[in-house]
Amino acid sequence: MEDHKVVLLDFWPSSYGMRVRIALAEKGVEYEAKEENLSDKSPLLLEMNPVHKLIPVLIHNGKPISESAIIVEYIDEVWKDKSPLLPSDPYERSRARFWADYVDKKINSTGKRVWMGKGEDQELAKKEFIECVRTLEGVLGDNPYFGGDKFGFLDVILVPFTTWFYTYQKCGNFSIEAECPKFMAWAKRCLEKDSVYKSIPHPHKVYDFALELKQKYG
Amino acid sequence: MEDHKVVLLDFWPSSYGMRVRIALAEKGVEYEAKEENLSDKSPLLLEMNPVHKLIPVLIHNGKPISESAIIVEYIDEVWKDKSPLLPSDPYERSRARFWADYVDKKINSTGKRVWMGKGEDQELAKKEFIECVRTLEGVLGDNPYFGGDKFGFLDVILVPFTTWFYTYQKCGNFSIEAECPKFMAWAKRCLEKDSVYKSIPHPHKVYDFALELKQKYG
Repeated sequence: MEDHKVVLLDFWPSSYGMRVRIALAEKGVEYEAKEENLSDKSPLLLEMNPVHKLIPVLIHNGKPISESAIIVEYIDEVWKDKSPLLPSDPYERSRARFWADYVDKKINSTGKRVWMGKGEDQELAKKEFIECVRTLEGVLGDNPYFGGDKFGFLDVILVPFTTWFYTYQKCGNFSIEAECPKFMAWAKRCLEKDSVYKSIPHPHKVYDFALELKQKYG
Repeated sequence: MEDHKVVLLDFWPSSYGMRVRIALAEKGVEYEAKEENLSDKSPLLLEMNPVHKLIPVLIHNGKPISESAIIVEYIDEVWKDKSPLLPSDPYERSRARFWADYVDKKINSTGKRVWMGKGEDQELAKKEFIECVRTLEGVLGDNPYFGGDKFGFLDVILVPFTTWFYTYQKCGNFSIEAECPKFMAWAKRCLEKDSVYKSIPHPHKVYDFALELKQKYG
């Protein structure tokens, strides 16, 4: 069976790990999750991702796949019969990949400057963050999902970050919902899906984790 | 016809533009090249890539595709019958994408610190650069190409940077060839292909361009 021996090296507050959890849930793939301690990485993680030494790593029949967006594409290609994530049209595929790349370049780095930042740079980061979310809101348009009528690749890539939004808002003292209501309606729509709801932690739990990190490194 | 109306917004010393030129040449796709002036970008570029405002942009039947690795995948998917670039096996595909991502994260940024840098950071960048190339040499192994027996996706992604190596070596006063002879043998092997040779400028021309940039911004 193709879906035998699937192991995920993961860390629960990681939006990148959540992407893989959601994709596996969408496909109905059972797997063994191994939680990593990032300040004392396991020999298995160092062996399976010697280049970046980062989670998530998917180990399928003993072979490792790293980098979350690449893992999601792999999952979509291997378990292709259920819940296709990328569209079949090459142009639409390139669009989904383009916006996934945009998310990777902008959302986490800007979000981190919001919740870890101070003073002027934090204010600037808040503005940049809202601009990014507005841009993505424009991409969504009037569709229920970024995948159009169906939850798709870009939804998987993007939705995990929304569980960090509570942290961004509390630390940045601003409201993303007030600025981008359509985007937040999309996030709520995604959370109604079991595959998403079960794969991402509660925003308050993420916030507690973030506060601990801030105390340690802020 | 699928290959009608193909336009490439390009800039000749760009390794990212070269990727697209090579992929189109591999597929035998005819196209109109439009050279951009990056200090005075054309209205067409700003319209076609409003998010990043960067070349290369491929315009196929009026629709724009941006980000070079995404463009190369698009070309491979649209003109799929000739010279397949990505392997068909999902695991091998994920490997090719992983190393393409590694190249995107490491080679250009480290290379730039070599040819633009000074003093201690330049020395550090030279060491990091050689480590990257050695890592890639390990990925190549004893194969003639990164695609195995055939020139493939990772070859397209990586080979354009080698025309900048002369600049790195002159500015950094070191020899990549002495450190990584197998890698340089691969680069020469690629240059024997028409699709590569015709798509990348001469290393001396790149060096002259780099010196001009250094005078302007160094």
